[in-house]
Order: sequence, then structure tokens, then C-alpha cells
Amino acid sequence: MSEVSVIRAGIVGATGYTGVELLRLLLGHPRVRPAVVTSRGQAGTPLSALFPNLRGQGDLRFQAPDAGALGECDVVFFATPHGVAHTLAGDLLQRGTRVIDLSADFRLRDPQLWSQWYGQPHGAPELLEEAVYGLPELNRARIPAARLIAVPGCYPTAVTLGLLPLLEAGVVDPAQLVADAKSGVSGSGRKAQVGSLFCEAAENFRAYALGGHRHLPEILQTLGEVSGVQPQLTFVPHLVPMVRGILATLYTRLLQPQTDLQALFERRYAHEPCVDVLPAGELPETRSVRGTNLCRLAVQRPQEGETAVVVSAIDNLVKGASGQAVQNMNLMFGLPETQGLEGIAILP
Amino acid sequence: MSEVSVIRAGIVGATGYTGVELLRLLLGHPRVRPAVVTSRGQAGTPLSALFPNLRGQGDLRFQAPDAGALGECDVVFFATPHGVAHTLAGDLLQRGTRVIDLSADFRLRDPQLWSQWYGQPHGAPELLEEAVYGLPELNRARIPAARLIAVPGCYPTAVTLGLLPLLEAGVVDPAQLVADAKSGVSGSGRKAQVGSLFCEAAENFRAYALGGHRHLPEILQTLGEVSGVQPQLTFVPHLVPMVRGILATLYTRLLQPQTDLQALFERRYAHEPCVDVLPAGELPETRSVRGTNLCRLAVQRPQEGETAVVVSAIDNLVKGASGQAVQNMNLMFGLPETQGLEGIAILP
Amino acid sequence: MSEVSVIRAGIVGATGYTGVELLRLLLGHPRVRPAVVTSRGQAGTPLSALFPNLRGQGDLRFQAPDAGALGECDVVFFATPHGVAHTLAGDLLQRGTRVIDLSADFRLRDPQLWSQWYGQPHGAPELLEEAVYGLPELNRARIPAARLIAVPGCYPTAVTLGLLPLLEAGVVDPAQLVADAKSGVSGSGRKAQVGSLFCEAAENFRAYALGGHRHLPEILQTLGEVSGVQPQLTFVPHLVPMVRGILATLYTRLLQPQTDLQALFERRYAHEPCVDVLPAGELPETRSVRGTNLCRLAVQRPQEGETAVVVSAIDNLVKGASGQAVQNMNLMFGLPETQGLEGIAILP
Amino acid sequence: MSEVSVIRAGIVGATGYTGVELLRLLLGHPRVRPAVVTSRGQAGTPLSALFPNLRGQGDLRFQAPDAGALGECDVVFFATPHGVAHTLAGDLLQRGTRVIDLSADFRLRDPQLWSQWYGQPHGAPELLEEAVYGLPELNRARIPAARLIAVPGCYPTAVTLGLLPLLEAGVVDPAQLVADAKSGVSGSGRKAQVGSLFCEAAENFRAYALGGHRHLPEILQTLGEVSGVQPQLTFVPHLVPMVRGILATLYTRLLQPQTDLQALFERRYAHEPCVDVLPAGELPETRSVRGTNLCRLAVQRPQEGETAVVVSAIDNLVKGASGQAVQNMNLMFGLPETQGLEGIAILP
Repeated sequence: MSEVSVIRAGIVGATGYTGVELLRLLLGHPRVRPAVVTSRGQAGTPLSALFPNLRGQGDLRFQAPDAGALGECDVVFFATPHGVAHTLAGDLLQRGTRVIDLSADFRLRDPQLWSQWYGQPHGAPELLEEAVYGLPELNRARIPAARLIAVPGCYPTAVTLGLLPLLEAGVVDPAQLVADAKSGVSGSGRKAQVGSLFCEAAENFRAYALGGHRHLPEILQTLGEVSGVQPQLTFVPHLVPMVRGILATLYTRLLQPQTDLQALFERRYAHEPCVDVLPAGELPETRSVRGTNLCRLAVQRPQEGETAVVVSAIDNLVKGASGQAVQNMNLMFGLPETQGLEGIAILP
Repeated sequence: MSEVSVIRAGIVGATGYTGVELLRLLLGHPRVRPAVVTSRGQAGTPLSALFPNLRGQGDLRFQAPDAGALGECDVVFFATPHGVAHTLAGDLLQRGTRVIDLSADFRLRDPQLWSQWYGQPHGAPELLEEAVYGLPELNRARIPAARLIAVPGCYPTAVTLGLLPLLEAGVVDPAQLVADAKSGVSGSGRKAQVGSLFCEAAENFRAYALGGHRHLPEILQTLGEVSGVQPQLTFVPHLVPMVRGILATLYTRLLQPQTDLQALFERRYAHEPCVDVLPAGELPETRSVRGTNLCRLAVQRPQEGETAVVVSAIDNLVKGASGQAVQNMNLMFGLPETQGLEGIAILP
Repeated sequence: MSEVSVIRAGIVGATGYTGVELLRLLLGHPRVRPAVVTSRGQAGTPLSALFPNLRGQGDLRFQAPDAGALGECDVVFFATPHGVAHTLAGDLLQRGTRVIDLSADFRLRDPQLWSQWYGQPHGAPELLEEAVYGLPELNRARIPAARLIAVPGCYPTAVTLGLLPLLEAGVVDPAQLVADAKSGVSGSGRKAQVGSLFCEAAENFRAYALGGHRHLPEILQTLGEVSGVQPQLTFVPHLVPMVRGILATLYTRLLQPQTDLQALFERRYAHEPCVDVLPAGELPETRSVRGTNLCRLAVQRPQEGETAVVVSAIDNLVKGASGQAVQNMNLMFGLPETQGLEGIAILP
Repeated sequence: MSEVSVIRAGIVGATGYTGVELLRLLLGHPRVRPAVVTSRGQAGTPLSALFPNLRGQGDLRFQAPDAGALGECDVVFFATPHGVAHTLAGDLLQRGTRVIDLSADFRLRDPQLWSQWYGQPHGAPELLEEAVYGLPELNRARIPAARLIAVPGCYPTAVTLGLLPLLEAGVVDPAQLVADAKSGVSGSGRKAQVGSLFCEAAENFRAYALGGHRHLPEILQTLGEVSGVQPQLTFVPHLVPMVRGILATLYTRLLQPQTDLQALFERRYAHEPCVDVLPAGELPETRSVRGTNLCRLAVQRPQEGETAVVVSAIDNLVKGASGQAVQNMNLMFGLPETQGLEGIAILP
């Protein structure tokens, strides 16, 4: 790609919250032009009819998904429910279009495990070999040449970045991991469902999916690769009455309690532009990363005990989805890794 | 007490959120009359000037604290910052008035431990001997005759009720306890401070006090008595952008994974009017207990692993403070245990 | 009805927010027993499965609507979308069951006007003659003998109670009325729709239905009767990011600026148990009426000008719906008007 | 100023919400460098200690206010309580530094009127002559040469932009204006006060300051200039349980009901980069302008009556304060008017 060229981007299924967030980021990106935005149900509708924040940002309209139009893009993002990317990704790759999938379709390497958790056969097992799990902090080397990126889920991003330094260094027991994760309601998407209504979610707090959340096998896959053994993780997600943000509180048993955890974290992420290890004693809050592609981390060892606690905060729609997708795109196209992702969080 | 008599109640320091909640409950209690309500700073002010919900509920006014007036009450509640009950409780007991303290003053049995966590000398160590920790589910037998009740803290109530069945039965390791607790903002009280402002707390989620929260020694004291050993607990409180409610998610290592945890919990709380063990598979949410004196509990063992997860929900201002105080009062005065506490949670 | 008898109540369509609020109030009413609760879609489901606050409040289950079972009730409430009461009310009245309709079906006296605003023919015009508009502050005399009550809408209750004293006294121009009304999201019901999602309604404020809201003709009908002329009202509803509450700010042009408005309001509502005129200078807030059947009112004349401003606050689900329905029921069955409605608002 | 030079900016009193928002905008502005940020109470503290969103955005620290350091800036912004700019602005102007005051100090041209509303003598009446009221849509021609800008208040911006087209065109009666305005809680600033606590403001809605809000004389001053007569305005502000945003609903009596209001508004604001007139029939919502410098407007004439309703939405901290300050700065320094203000609103 020449220095001055512009990347033509397509978005499939841009009517949800990751879709509008991706549009916000791409419209503000100096080297990208959103060229094709598809929605089967909203063909012909201007983007601003669904998303009033996009009024005045050009006259793009949703169009019906069409492999031909999408195939003329340099890159196509999928912001769709699971299963959709399975049906279109192969065709696009053949046309020379690179694919960044924000859905779960290519995150698990084992198609049978995928099938078990998603309740349907895997629709494109032949592409799994080349799919790269797009967590730059783990797989940066493989991303530039990748044709197909599986953007990590929101919970997996927060949990994995928080546990990586400990597991890589072998200082905690991988068989005793706890991830108590809390997410804003936008994690449930824009689908009209009773549980996501204002009057159900406001002034309320609850845990859910103790029996098993679909992000669990994804987290286990990565942690297993990193630690070299099959980890045991108790993962409990909770719903917070706020729009954006994930905060994961991670509990681990220290094998070597004397490790300087602060130094370990600072060293591990010293050159990561999207991970911020807070000074010792400080704790992250979700508003400090709202709208940004940052993961802010803290690690502590309460009461000098055997348990290390990590607190990890991201914006579920940015580092947990659309921002991470753009970070991958930047790496794939040789752009500065954080281009288009430099906005400061709005506070308050 | 004769069947028809009315209990004269005093409240010291009723300008905060536990104060107004106590007033709401006592004003609706058929056998109690709030007779003296004190506030040094608001003497002469009608209650409704501070609490518009109390308009039309009689013409009580705040008055300056006065041992004489308070000493004519049958019972005096302290809804004050720590240290205040130390200075007044002894005098009231001598006058024959029973004391129910919602503050931390008499919760820890060791005055030096108290002094260490609260940063000042204990002001009434001579009363600790007779003070009863007012968790009816643990100490019901001792409450009717008590003259001085220390009402448990909000986090301790939620955490302790969730762990009691497991520790009493000896089925989990007391050296590996994790309590990830989340509280609404009313837990911070009505004091004007930046951290409790709407614009700081709304659309935000954060952990705090990892280094050590004042409720930690209180929880450890009770759990230690129950389990017979010194437990190890990692306790991390979080702030939720909602007004009321605590949800504690508790992680324990099972010593006997085959235990029927559901049956254990149902049996333990079978006759407890203020604890509700949910059916297997269901999870509590804070709105289901809002305004009520209930603790709703669920226990699960995710992925059939070695970790048992308990979810415990209370209203921090009711079962976590003022409602529990009334429950104690009912027991002390021979009234039905839940009298005045039967209101159904408002939903939505 | 004998002094000790219990009123058997039926509720049709109790799966929404007015339904659960009605259940909360009736379950706490000392003289009523909810006997039949219907829902076509949820037949067989326990109430608590939809409404976790009702867990432990008996073992009622939803059943399919059945005129026979409902006809054995003393009174049947309709908490249904418009059109449903049309089809069932006549049958129930013939069986001797009295009907309290919380929907819009019998609010407008002119069936053609109804048809025009609701987009379908009126289904029971023959019942309009005897239907009583259940605003006790206006029609108390007619309610005890009524067989069929049309409970006023939420906005109409707040707006009408605020304007009544001014129009009855003839001190403002009925041709220049403005009602700027703000409602919590529960006014939109429990239907799964994108506009009511947490992520659409939180941290947002908007006006809607400027072109004409269905509550407009209802308000105009009442105000016209009171003032004796056809009033002109500009009515703009707004959506507030909160669950419960309506605050209506009413702007009127004074014909007689020297009128003592405070005295006028206090006189008008002196004997009304559910209307609270605040002292001069104070303003109501929605939280002060949350969960209660009160309408709190203030009237002021800013800058001693020609405009009188009334501020009117209610809980849209109580005085704006289910509480007002119970108030009507109490009057119909000779009970104390506020029985079962005495609960104090929870604050905070 | 040369094309490549950078504007050195100072901010006095940057510890509040307009301060941090100004920092966010200036840190993202390609032609500005925040050089001096003062706070008497926080001298020495890094910005990120107060504002976690600014972590990683350089190592600026608060310093004590010092005319010397501020006088080396090209421009100094005051984000202070009223009265502070009075004491410093004259000195800075003499040193050749231009001043943009976000406080109320120079908004009212009549120092006695100012004194009356702010309860203290005007501290710099000699500067009033040259102060320019920084509403670019009204005073753009005078801003480039101005040395001292009074940035309009938040309510005045929303109300004035909504009424300007109608009053300029003379199509409504200036003696019968109503502004029903609703603001998020950030309008109350970051001061620790009970009324701004989460537990006081959440799940609540209320009107305030009916007797007279300080923004009233400011609005009247502008509207009077525009309409050529002394207008009569009933202005009622309300507090919305959200962080950011103002929505003003404006009611006016049409003198010429047949006017094409939509065309009037579109024509008036055709070339305004920060005002967006929505298509006929659409209504603005505050989230569509969150974090942006836009005012979105709609005008309607409900029921073809004599009342025109305008709905005006801004972000109170951006177009209502810090963004408008930057817009003025851009005009003063010959930069593109919206430079640094192009960010798209985050949604959801």
C-alpha cells in the first residue's frame, strides 16, 4: 500500500453497537474510507437514521450484503451474530479482500468445540488454519501478514490481558484461576429483548451464566497456550447498570509470593501502546478508558497473602471489539498501530 | 411488654441514609413510635426538609442530642459515624434504655483491633463484653435478652450469610476464601464528597480498598468463630452505579466436592424468615430485595469443578443496616421477627 | 360487603409493569386477595418467574384468560394494551363483576375520537355511557356506584391535577396552556423494543410525539369539561433516564394575576388524601412520590409576571396507573380511600 | 500568527468539569499546547491524579496561579467560579495575553445587573466595554479582533440558538416566551455538595430555581438585543439524572402562524458549522451531541396551532462551555472554526 492511498473498508452488519462504534472510529481514521456498509433489514436507510451521532458524517446508506461490492474493498469487517462470517469470509478472501471478524466465528481453533458452545456446525472449518487470533499483545508478529483475523471477545480481552504476565512467568497456579467480570449493558447488543430494557437493567446488579458463558472456552484456549497446561478457570460475568465498560477482577494463587508483581506487569507491557499498567497502589475505573482502545491494569497482593488480585478495565466496544479490530487493521496495512485510536476518554 | 404498649424509639444521627431508612421502617411499624430524632447540626428542622419522602408523616423535628430525652426511650438506635455510640451508649444503658448501634463501634470484640482499623482508641471497651453481634441467623438466641446490639455492617451481612453454611459444614477450605463484593453508592453515605457525586459514580465501575476495607476484620471475626480456625479471605469491594444493593460473589475451594450444596443451603436457612435460598439454577439480583430485609442466596459449582460459587444479594440499607436493626429490635421486644419488614420490593 | 369479607380480585394481562405494580399493591392490601391473574402467553408460569420481587408472596400462577374464572371475582382489573378490555368488560359486567380498566379503552367518551387516535374501531361503545373516568379528585361522587371505571392515563393524571384549580377558578386562559411533561422509561411498558433499551435511554434525554400523543385528547376532554370551553393545550412529552416518575411543568397565562395561587391550590386540595400541595416556595421531585399514590404540587408566578407555573409530580405506575386503580377500588367497595396505599416512598 | 506556530494556552482553575473538558479538547487540538494549568489547591499534582482519562497525555501538573507564567501564554482560559476572572483578566490583557472567560464575569454588560444577580460588586467594570459575548452564531464578526471573550452560559447557548431565528424574523411575540430547560448533573460542577450526590440525583427528576436563575438576565440581554424590545421569558431549569447534555424545549406564540418555520431555521443556520437543523419531523436527543460542539435544533407547530415549539440540544460542557471556548479561540487566532472540535459523539 502506498503512503497516500486510502483503505476502502466494508462493514457487514453495522446496525448494532459494535457496528456504530466501528463506523465512528473508521470515519475518524485519516487513512480509511468506509465504502460499503451492509444490513439486510435496513437497505437504503441512511446511517444517521439508526445512529443520530452520525448525522453530518457523509451520506452513506446501508445496502444489502453483496459479495461483489464487498469484494472491492481492501478489508471487510464483520460485526454480525455468529455464523454470518462463516458464510461470506471464504468468498471475500478469494477475491483478495482481507477479513476482520468481530464475531466468534474464527476464535476457537477446534471446530467441534465451537459447535458445542454455539449449537450449530462450524461453517468454515477450512479457514481456521489461517485465522489469527487478533490480540496484538500476544500475536503481533502474525497479524501483518494475516488475511483473516478473529477479533477477541470483550471478556476474553480483559481477562487475558490481566492474566498473561502471571501465566507467562509461571508465578501463579493455572489450576486455580477466578475471573469475576462485570460488563456494561452494551455487551448484550442492540437486540430488542426484555432483559436489556432500561427498566430491567437500571438500579440493578446481577450475575449471569454461571453454568458456562461462551467466552469461557476462548479464554481457556489462550491461557492454555500461554501456560502450557490446561487451566482451570471459574468465570462469572455480571451485568452493571452502565452503558460501556468491562472491569474484570482476577484472583490467582501465587506459587512464588515474593515475585515483584508490579515490575512483572510493567516489564511485560512496557512497549504496548494499548496497555497501561497503573502505578503501584492505584486502581483502574471503566470511565478512564471509555471510548478508548486502552486496557488499564493494576496488580496487588492484599494483606501480603497468597492471592494476587489483578484489576483490568477496558471499553467493551473499543478494546473489547471495534477498536481492537482497527488496531489489527493498522497492523495489517502497515499503519501506525494506534492511528485513529488516539481520542481521549470523555470525563465526566 | 404488654400486648398493646408502644415502643418509644430514639434515633441518634438520623440525617444520613441509614437514618432515613430507619425512620421509614419505624414510621410504618405498628408497634413503634419514633419519639426522639437527634442531629446536632439540624436541631429544629422538620424531617421532611431533609427527606421529602417523609412529608405528611407527622411533624417530628430533629432535636439536639440529649441523654435525658433519649433516656426516656425504650430503645435508641445509633445511625452515626463510628465513635459516637462509644460516648453515649453507656449512659443510656444505665438509664435502662436498650441500644441498637448501626455503626461499627461494638462489632469487633477486640478493642485493640478496633483501634487499629479505625485509627482512634476504643471509647467504651467496658461494654464489649455484653454487646451482641446482631446477626439473627447466627446469634438469635442471645438477642432477646441483649441490652446492646452491634448491627453487622452491610458487606459483612452479605458475605457472612453466603459463607455460613459452607464453613459450618466444613466443606470448604477456610484458608482460600474470595469475596468479590459490589455495592450501590448509598453505601458511601450522604456525606458531600467528590467521589460520591453523580458525575463521578454514574456510567463508571471500579474496585476500591484492595489494601484493606474496615469490614474485613469484622467478617474474619465471624468466619473464624464459625470455622474454628483463622480464615484467609481476599475481600475486594466495588462501587456500582446504582443507589441501593449489594451483590457479593463468593468463591470457595471445596474440600468435599460431592456435597449437595443446594440441600445444605436450604437446610441451613429453612426456618429463617429473612433468608431466601433460590431454587437450583436461579441467581439473585439486587432489585429483587430492594427496600426489603431479605438476603437472597444461590450456590453453584460451575463446570463441576472444585470451586463453589455463592451469590448473595441484599439491600445494603435494609438487611445491611436499618432493616436488620429493626429485626433485632423485634427480637429484643418479643415482637414477631419480621413485623414492619413485610413490604414487597418495588419493581421496576 | 360485610366488614370482614375479602375482595376477590382478578387481573388481566399482569405481565407488564402496571400489572406487577398492581400485584404488589393488592398483595399488601389487607382486604383484597388476588385470585386470578391471567396472561395468554405465560399460562402456568409462577408470578415470580417474571417478577423476582414477588418470590415468597404465595404461589399464584398466571392462567389463560377465562371469563368464567374472572367472572367469579368481585372486581377485575385490566392491565392490558388498548382493545382488550373492549372485548371482555361487557361479559364481566353481566356476570356481576365490576371492572377497573387501566388501559385507554373507556377514557374517551366519544368513540369516534377514540377510533381516530387508536387506529381501530371502538369495541364497546355501548359501555361508554356508564363508564366513569376514575379521577377521584374530580369524580369522587360517581365512583362508589360505578360498575366500570376508566383509570386515567399517567400524563393526564399529572397534568389534570395541576391545572384543575386554575381552570375551575377561571383565573387562567384555557386557550394558552402548555404542558411540558417528563416521564421515566417505565411509561413505555415492558415490551421488548429498541427505544426502551438501557443503552438507548440511559445518559440521554429527548422529547417525543410533538405531533400528537394519545394522552392529548384525554387531557383536553377533562379540561374542557372543567373550563366549559374547548381548551388549547400544547403538550410535549419527554423521556427521562430513570425508571419511575412523571414531572409535568405547566405554563398558563393568568387572567387575574393578583390571585393568591397558593391559597387557591391549598383550598382546592384541602381534603384530598392523595394530593399534597407543597408550602410556598418548595418544589416537588419525583423521588418523593416513588412507589406512592401521591401527587405533589407546587404553583409559582416567576418574576411576578403573567405566567403561572405549576409543577406536578407523580409515580407514573402508582397514582398514574395501579395505585389510582386501587384508590378507585377502595371507593367502589366502601373501604378507606387510601387503604393499602400508605407506604412511604423509599429514599434514596 | 504564522502557519506553523503553536498557540500556548493557559487554563486557570482546571479542576472542575469544564476544566477537564477544555484540557481534553486542547490536548487533541493540532495547533495548541496547554502550557500552564493552574489550581491554587492542587499545585504540584499531576492532571491525571484528578482526571484519570488524562493519564498518558503528557506530564503536565497543576501549578499555583501566577500572572507571570500565564502572561507568557497567547491565550488564557478561565474555568473558574465567578469573580476570579475579574481579578486577573486586566493584568493579562496588559501583558498582551488574550482572555477567554468561561465564567459569568463578563457576560452581562450592565455591572449593576451583574452585581444584583451575583451578590457582590463587579470587579472589572472597565473591561466590559471591550468584552465580546462569544456566541459565534450571533457575534462572529467581532470575535477575531477581540481580546476578551465572555463565553455564554450553557442554558443561554441552548435557549438563545433556539429562539434567534424566530425573534430575528419577528414572527413570534417576545412578550410570551417559555423556556423549559433540562440539564445533566455536570452543569452543577464538581463541587462536593449533597444535591449533586449520586444518591440524590439518580432516579429522580426535579425543577429548580423557578424564582430566578442566574442565566435568566443573560438570556434576556441577548434576546432583547435581537428583538429590539424587552422580552418576557419564563425560564424553568430542571435536573436530569444523566451526566451531560441540555435539552431546551421552547414555547413561543406565533404572530404569523403561516410562516414556514422549517425554512426559516434552515436559512438562518445554513452556513453555521456548529448548528444542525434537523429535517422536518425529527427531534434531537442529547446523546447525539455528547462530546461535540454541535447544537441540534428542531422546530414544530403542534396541531397547526398558534404555538411554535423549538427543541434545542447541546452538550453543556462542550457547546455550552469548553467547546464554544475553543470555537472562539479558533476564530481569534485565524484557525478553521471547528479545528479540534470534529470528534463524533460516542453512541451508545
